[in-house]
Amino acid sequence: MTASDATWIAADWGTTNLRVWAMSASGTVLAAATSDDGMGRLARDAYPAALDRLTADWPRVPVIACGMVGSRQGWAEAAYTAVPCPPLSDNLTPAGDRTHIIPGLKQASPADVMRGEETQIAGFLALNPGWDGVICLPGTHTKWVHISAGEVVSFQTVMTGDLFAAITGHTVLRHSTAAGWDDAGFAQGVEDVISRPEKLAARLFALRAEGLLDGLPDATARSRLSGLLIGAELAATKPYWLGQQIAVIGAGTLAGLYVAALAAQSAPATQVNADRATLAGLTAAYRRWKDQT
Amino acid sequence: MTASDATWIAADWGTTNLRVWAMSASGTVLAAATSDDGMGRLARDAYPAALDRLTADWPRVPVIACGMVGSRQGWAEAAYTAVPCPPLSDNLTPAGDRTHIIPGLKQASPADVMRGEETQIAGFLALNPGWDGVICLPGTHTKWVHISAGEVVSFQTVMTGDLFAAITGHTVLRHSTAAGWDDAGFAQGVEDVISRPEKLAARLFALRAEGLLDGLPDATARSRLSGLLIGAELAATKPYWLGQQIAVIGAGTLAGLYVAALAAQSAPATQVNADRATLAGLTAAYRRWKDQT
Repeated sequence: MTASDATWIAADWGTTNLRVWAMSASGTVLAAATSDDGMGRLARDAYPAALDRLTADWPRVPVIACGMVGSRQGWAEAAYTAVPCPPLSDNLTPAGDRTHIIPGLKQASPADVMRGEETQIAGFLALNPGWDGVICLPGTHTKWVHISAGEVVSFQTVMTGDLFAAITGHTVLRHSTAAGWDDAGFAQGVEDVISRPEKLAARLFALRAEGLLDGLPDATARSRLSGLLIGAELAATKPYWLGQQIAVIGAGTLAGLYVAALAAQSAPATQVNADRATLAGLTAAYRRWKDQT
Repeated sequence: MTASDATWIAADWGTTNLRVWAMSASGTVLAAATSDDGMGRLARDAYPAALDRLTADWPRVPVIACGMVGSRQGWAEAAYTAVPCPPLSDNLTPAGDRTHIIPGLKQASPADVMRGEETQIAGFLALNPGWDGVICLPGTHTKWVHISAGEVVSFQTVMTGDLFAAITGHTVLRHSTAAGWDDAGFAQGVEDVISRPEKLAARLFALRAEGLLDGLPDATARSRLSGLLIGAELAATKPYWLGQQIAVIGAGTLAGLYVAALAAQSAPATQVNADRATLAGLTAAYRRWKDQT
């Protein structure tokens, strides 16, 4: 089979990228394409053309989409589903003449939202039926998700990646954390903040001062900063992961850091391929949509 | 007396501004001027002209300067003095033909540095002889300084202002914290993080989510963020301020927030005018320099 045999298109449409896959009815990937036509650079009326441009060589078949395309600033707002609930809603939001958007999830208290991760969660659960535990989805805004009996019971967002970028790009630490990596520095950062979380605010400027006074290498400062922020995240989310079965869904390096930090807390976690989870989730959504129509 | 009677010039030369005062021998301000010729925009050979430009109408008298002008990227590096020590060193670093730079302070462990604040501390102690306790100097990089018997015993920098600017300017919270103020939001932020410092990382994204789901006003989100960060600073510096006499040296609004946050922890603090402390410190340094020459 080739892309011309596609019966539907899977789309992961986030803030910075649009990724599409030409899919067979059984969920086989026939072709894939990516563009930088993310939500961040598209006006509302530009979405149909962005999609058609990227899929021009494929059949004009239904599209199942997840991600920020369904946000208030996206193509069409797909209203959040409230937890506790299964990760996938039966109510997809139509956009244009052939696209159906998976809604995100919301939590009333503490207030929280997700868009896109619900599809990865659904995909992981489709690949691991009956799985209970906690899923961590690292990213700009990392999600911690409590799963029980196939439902999202509760979740917690921690903006660690966003903070790391802002601190290394826009504070005095930009002079001390330019590049490089040092596993021991990362481990020390995690340990420092897990053992004394109330000291976090005092440990950041020390990265700069140790650079000035002791010649602390940038790679160590950068890694320790990452450890401090991920350690602070683990301290804040301890009620989620302590004593639970844990799956980390994410791309290689970042997900690996979470697995390492959790392992240092005697909390073993399984790392799961993010793209595989996304595609499995979009496929599950497509099948349910197909069954309804 | 007028500026033409000046016998020396006081200079507070920081990263963004150069501020100068024409001074009488007895420490009276005869005239003042400010420019944006801070360290951040001056190449090393541009310092003399920047100084001469701003003081062109005054007598060409000795200049006593404090601040980033003495950093490695400044006019001439004034090597740090190691604590414990009095805030003012007798060894000023010469720059050009008439300028003398007050060195900053350094601490070996935990590694820390200050430049400029040592002069405000000296000024405060000159105005309050025999004072013992803890001085807080709020700013981009807030300093907490333990004073005993006229010496700086130890100090701790917390980069709260730098973090606040990076978070409100360069993370997703920029959409939710644009402007405005709400005292109750600030107080809640301080209380939230002081009572559960390990939860800090989990409270930041909630400011965005409450905006999306509950219509949390930007002013409340911005104030609560400020409270969370200052609260995290107070949690980290508790060994400094708990049970101590506290002076907060700083400009109105920001210093007032620290005084309010400390008061909520039953730690009353006295607010001290920063410019008065700076000038008293530069005057003390001038007198000691004059006595040596």
